[in-house]
Amino acid sequence: MNYVLGIDIGGTNVVAGIVNKEGDIIQQFQYKTNNYITAENLITDIYKDCKLFERDSNLKVSAVGIGAPNANYFTGEIEFAPNLNWGNSVPISKIATKYFNLPVKIINDANAAAIGEKFFGCAKEISNFVLLTIGTGLGSGIYVNGKILLGKNGMAGEFGHTQLPHIKRVCSCGQIGCIETVASKRGILQTYKEKYNELFNDFLDNMPSIEQIYQLALNGNNIALSVFQEVCEVLSIGIANLIMILDTEAIILFGGIANAHKIMIPIIENEVNKRLLPVFKNKVKILPSMLLNKNASVLGSAAMFFYEF
Amino acid sequence: MNYVLGIDIGGTNVVAGIVNKEGDIIQQFQYKTNNYITAENLITDIYKDCKLFERDSNLKVSAVGIGAPNANYFTGEIEFAPNLNWGNSVPISKIATKYFNLPVKIINDANAAAIGEKFFGCAKEISNFVLLTIGTGLGSGIYVNGKILLGKNGMAGEFGHTQLPHIKRVCSCGQIGCIETVASKRGILQTYKEKYNELFNDFLDNMPSIEQIYQLALNGNNIALSVFQEVCEVLSIGIANLIMILDTEAIILFGGIANAHKIMIPIIENEVNKRLLPVFKNKVKILPSMLLNKNASVLGSAAMFFYEF
Repeated sequence: MNYVLGIDIGGTNVVAGIVNKEGDIIQQFQYKTNNYITAENLITDIYKDCKLFERDSNLKVSAVGIGAPNANYFTGEIEFAPNLNWGNSVPISKIATKYFNLPVKIINDANAAAIGEKFFGCAKEISNFVLLTIGTGLGSGIYVNGKILLGKNGMAGEFGHTQLPHIKRVCSCGQIGCIETVASKRGILQTYKEKYNELFNDFLDNMPSIEQIYQLALNGNNIALSVFQEVCEVLSIGIANLIMILDTEAIILFGGIANAHKIMIPIIENEVNKRLLPVFKNKVKILPSMLLNKNASVLGSAAMFFYEF
Repeated sequence: MNYVLGIDIGGTNVVAGIVNKEGDIIQQFQYKTNNYITAENLITDIYKDCKLFERDSNLKVSAVGIGAPNANYFTGEIEFAPNLNWGNSVPISKIATKYFNLPVKIINDANAAAIGEKFFGCAKEISNFVLLTIGTGLGSGIYVNGKILLGKNGMAGEFGHTQLPHIKRVCSCGQIGCIETVASKRGILQTYKEKYNELFNDFLDNMPSIEQIYQLALNGNNIALSVFQEVCEVLSIGIANLIMILDTEAIILFGGIANAHKIMIPIIENEVNKRLLPVFKNKVKILPSMLLNKNASVLGSAAMFFYEF
């Protein structure tokens, strides 16, 4: 097998890439998730682009790997994904098979990213790690003893929806207190807004972007810094709990927000170690993904056909 | 191998049993943990009892399996166990090898109980489950894909020390907010005391035992019922988080407190399902251990020599 089409379906963007065994993305296509009313519309467009690529390059794609939120490896369906609007149960594997007529595998997007990190990123030598995808939502891909943790139904790693009762925010999943309501794009923006309103007793007219908040923090802006402090504190409670449950070797930060790792990692290291039992203290590495500027989910989705994961 | 000595070291009691491959404990010895100033004193006594057994029965013990809190499978040491007072690092495997001159394996007591449940209890057909030991402390043994989850350092499953920030109690480990401070013997007693004081604006003179509180609850006593409700609510937040991280098939209740499962399980089922993402709702079994009146840790510690775990 020489080339696999890896597709990363996110709440905001969809990226499809033609991947080789070395983890090079030799061609990449991008789509806006909200432009597609159904998953089938999306797959149709990806299929067309893939066919054009094959015609122009004279290369052949041999399989399709898909990473998507709440994708079930065993059933081939996307089930109850809070950040997608294509219904409660999307038979994405069946749809992709119909168009491409090739072997198709689907996996939770965070698992895909973890597989990408394992074969092409900073986890090549690590058998036990958790990759956190911090972006529109908060997900995790968990490696245990050198194998991805799928769980009974292929749905393991829903770290973003683990709850801390002191969080009072309502999540996109309908629950209250999910860590994702704080440690995600949405969570950071909301925290910024709340802090601004509180401090100036005034409503924020022009909401800065995540990138701007990060730049403000890098420049020493107090509100921005306190936003990252608060977000990382909540995230760290969850990470410390993960470490004590899994006895993992490394936590890898991935996703849009992880680009702020220069500010986040020192806070997380401090907050996590404060909470750990002595046996775990200062043993767990908190690392930025090595694939932050690549697409780890595309790579990992494709890697399912190249390697034992 | 016909007979293995399984030893379960708890914060209150130590039980040693001569176990056969079918999971029968053909002879059992019991010790009070606090009677022993060092682990070596304890092992000396167990060794003497084992030798007497061998002499009287004409049977031979071929190996020694030990389950203990914070026991590290890889190093053979008990490390920083908050409920034992034998120092930060107890080379229990080395000590046992010295006396018995037999193969010795040690494992976290909750892992031992999970292994016991897997081979001799209600988890024979289950590949993904979490066994919770609710007693003096709160521990967990996690099975993933038919294998016990040891983690990088053999310390996985420290569920009792995962933290929920709305809990304000100080734990025996020194941290604040560990689930163990609520869901354990100590936690139940403290909750009862607090509720009594609050309700009657008076201090409790005669503290009932756990068993008495359970009997009171069975008889419909409001304080006792609200104690179990509150304890199970906190425990359920942790269980729901475990399910969303691990996508596990069953939660098995074990340990002294699990004898109250008739009252606890309906509350836990309700509270856990309230918090789960739709994909997980009503799929996970909450079960009482099938080994509640046997000693699962003794059986599991011995089973390490009989089976691949």
